[in-house]
Amino acid sequence: MRALASLLEHEVEFEFVALDLNAGEHKKEPFLTLSPLGTLPIFQDGDLIVFGSRSIMRCISHIYLNPKTNQIYMAPKMQGIVSTWIDVEDHHFDPPALKLISELVYKPKNGLQPDEMTVASEEAKLAGVLDVYEEKLTNSKFLGGDKFTSADLTHLPSLHYLMRTLVKRLFQERTKVNAWCAAITSRPAWAKVVEMVVEK
Amino acid sequence: MRALASLLEHEVEFEFVALDLNAGEHKKEPFLTLSPLGTLPIFQDGDLIVFGSRSIMRCISHIYLNPKTNQIYMAPKMQGIVSTWIDVEDHHFDPPALKLISELVYKPKNGLQPDEMTVASEEAKLAGVLDVYEEKLTNSKFLGGDKFTSADLTHLPSLHYLMRTLVKRLFQERTKVNAWCAAITSRPAWAKVVEMVVEK
Repeated sequence: MRALASLLEHEVEFEFVALDLNAGEHKKEPFLTLSPLGTLPIFQDGDLIVFGSRSIMRCISHIYLNPKTNQIYMAPKMQGIVSTWIDVEDHHFDPPALKLISELVYKPKNGLQPDEMTVASEEAKLAGVLDVYEEKLTNSKFLGGDKFTSADLTHLPSLHYLMRTLVKRLFQERTKVNAWCAAITSRPAWAKVVEMVVEK
Repeated sequence: MRALASLLEHEVEFEFVALDLNAGEHKKEPFLTLSPLGTLPIFQDGDLIVFGSRSIMRCISHIYLNPKTNQIYMAPKMQGIVSTWIDVEDHHFDPPALKLISELVYKPKNGLQPDEMTVASEEAKLAGVLDVYEEKLTNSKFLGGDKFTSADLTHLPSLHYLMRTLVKRLFQERTKVNAWCAAITSRPAWAKVVEMVVEK
């Protein structure tokens, strides 16, 4: 979803190739030659092959910078700021977010009860991160500054699932975070991703 | 160590400011205003503040690109490749590396025995990653291509400690990986970092 959102934001023409994961196509050749660690997704552009969703997102924003959509800043210092917030998402936001999605989305889907202790402790971690975001978003509309960048986009996959759980209140309780969520989840590129991936 | 190595590779003049971690200076103001998650290190350059060692490394390589040392490629596609291998280090190499350092360096230092099961399973994970590196380094001298980049530099802190343990043999058993380790750990910038940080 992260890679697709980045492609659509940059208005890149692409072909989406699905693998049969049940048949383990991602752990066999010819896929392992493209993605030696057997990870999904990969991005192929001529002889360039990039794997890892955040690497793909970073790479697309470098290659397909579109002055019209202006999704990423060109100034090196601004790239540093965007990079910082991508890493904050990767190392601080996503770990509790993924654990909460596992407890509150996947477990119930499989008829299992969420573990309340895990939910409480991961919610506390996520709340701490959101407090930092609230402060940051008081000074600028988006995490990387006044324009939407990959620093915001990288949050969309986890946000999509979290906003369908009780964890939604942690976002709603914070005015700036709530406005930021509304702004980034309502982007047309994201609506297309949800339609492509989730509704099928 | 990662941030210092990047500064020295790019020949950036800097001032190193140490915090008193025992006094919890990193969890108090004024530091929390600079690093809202209380993480170390941070990098301050005028009004630019970047935190997270990999973000700092990425940022320095954007801002202080030195055509003389030419540490990072300018072509956007090459930045995509470098980005990919930084994320491979972050998500695949570093997790088993840090667990092995904890078992084989920190535990013995504190008079504790390493857990043999943990060591065996983390060594197996690291070996799988090094097999991928061996293949990659058969096609190019460095992970990002034929020049030393942040994709290599990012491995130095963990390598420094791992090469002082029995895990060293996993690197030595792989010809290309072994040559790569020798090349990147013998860089003058890295020798300075070791002198600055470790020997004190």
